[in-house]
Amino acid sequence: MCNACVIESVKTNMLSRRGLFRAAAAGAITAAAVGTGALSPAIAAAPASVTDLTHELYEEFPTFFGPQQFFREQKFNFKEHTFNLFELRYSEHTGTHMDAPLHFSADGMSVAEIPVENLVVPLAVIDIRQKAADDPDAQLTPDDLKAWIAANGEIPDNACIALNSGWSAHLGTDKFRNADAEGKMHFPGFHVEAVQALLETKAAGIAVDTLSLDYGISPDFATHNTWLPAGRWGLEAVANLDRLPAKGATLVVGAPKVRGGTGGPARVLALV
Amino acid sequence: MCNACVIESVKTNMLSRRGLFRAAAAGAITAAAVGTGALSPAIAAAPASVTDLTHELYEEFPTFFGPQQFFREQKFNFKEHTFNLFELRYSEHTGTHMDAPLHFSADGMSVAEIPVENLVVPLAVIDIRQKAADDPDAQLTPDDLKAWIAANGEIPDNACIALNSGWSAHLGTDKFRNADAEGKMHFPGFHVEAVQALLETKAAGIAVDTLSLDYGISPDFATHNTWLPAGRWGLEAVANLDRLPAKGATLVVGAPKVRGGTGGPARVLALV
Repeated sequence: MCNACVIESVKTNMLSRRGLFRAAAAGAITAAAVGTGALSPAIAAAPASVTDLTHELYEEFPTFFGPQQFFREQKFNFKEHTFNLFELRYSEHTGTHMDAPLHFSADGMSVAEIPVENLVVPLAVIDIRQKAADDPDAQLTPDDLKAWIAANGEIPDNACIALNSGWSAHLGTDKFRNADAEGKMHFPGFHVEAVQALLETKAAGIAVDTLSLDYGISPDFATHNTWLPAGRWGLEAVANLDRLPAKGATLVVGAPKVRGGTGGPARVLALV
Repeated sequence: MCNACVIESVKTNMLSRRGLFRAAAAGAITAAAVGTGALSPAIAAAPASVTDLTHELYEEFPTFFGPQQFFREQKFNFKEHTFNLFELRYSEHTGTHMDAPLHFSADGMSVAEIPVENLVVPLAVIDIRQKAADDPDAQLTPDDLKAWIAANGEIPDNACIALNSGWSAHLGTDKFRNADAEGKMHFPGFHVEAVQALLETKAAGIAVDTLSLDYGISPDFATHNTWLPAGRWGLEAVANLDRLPAKGATLVVGAPKVRGGTGGPARVLALV
């Protein structure tokens, strides 16, 4: 059956009311199937796959500053009250989380003010695993951006550019923070010149699989201070980037909508 | 240009490396455009629209129990520390939020255990605004389900069924909780017989625009106790359902991924 015939067949099937939803799902899958890699991401009610880029959040989740930042207290329990309920207490910047522009600016956008269209965006994944394995102080540089563009085309408007350093595999070990004897951390991040270059594009955000947009030994948060005050957002400690293609996924950032919030734990999903 | 020609044209355009991402975006839009209403929801890197079903969360957000449930403390401020950061404290069941099966069961799924495929689902919106306006104790009944199915086809597998009672318009007024002189609340919810009927389908979840899956005067949480222990989820206090079609939207539930959590404030988006 040719591609066009498949489409026509689906449209015909959809005239049957009883099969409406099933036909819609089938049509969506067909639309993805007829395309090449670049016709995807055509996401539908039943996208081909959903990848969870979110780590579980728990008391011992490692933090940038070191001390524990997530706490809970059980207020109701099933045995006694017939339902369970916890009260949570945590820093906004814990776990897989969003940095809103307000995090590093006097009056930038809060997490609730980021336009919702900037939370459903094309995802570009840049793989620097090899150099991060060779050197934990590695950074994503303008040369890495150029190499990605040469292989994949221009950075799409409204994109999120994600750094895959392989660091999420170290969660649960000391290597995740990788602090030296002086307490200085050693993990990869975005070089300030890379985000300066990205400010020339219409990218919406950047994402890292480490504890900070800046590399661990940064003395000055140069990347935070360049990127966030420009009205762009960041994601830290994302998971599972190695399961995604370099291009073609759609990122959905389930950022909290706390009025005046500077960011917060987010549910981050990729649709392919 | 015929549908097939558009698809072929897009595929040809995609052979040009420089225009790869733009072609992909164009292809996605084309895929949506060639379909009828039922071919949508074909969502792409640039979906036709993103609707935010999430209310802002703030200190005075009304709660089921009455007292304030959301608190924050500023730990760092830009003037003094060059960045802003808050610590938050709140009940999991505050604002626009998820009820996980564990909320009303001894050992049901926590919010972190819900399969991610059950968080990106077809959305069915059932409008009971007229009867809710006539009677704040109105419930969504099996007859309402039947009327929706007669008009729109069977409930799709993995769907979320949302009750649009018009109640979100009352947020910020006493009508949202609508407590009487005895403190009993009066707002709409799902009738227990409706969720019993939905347990015969493969629906993933239900959503309400009020403070509870059960109607306000429920003496026994019958709907909670029927739906959640069966391994299905709920969303409470969702916004903007009146901006969506009865069928055809894809719901993305940005639920928190707290280990062992019973639910929590979620970012809920609809892609059309």
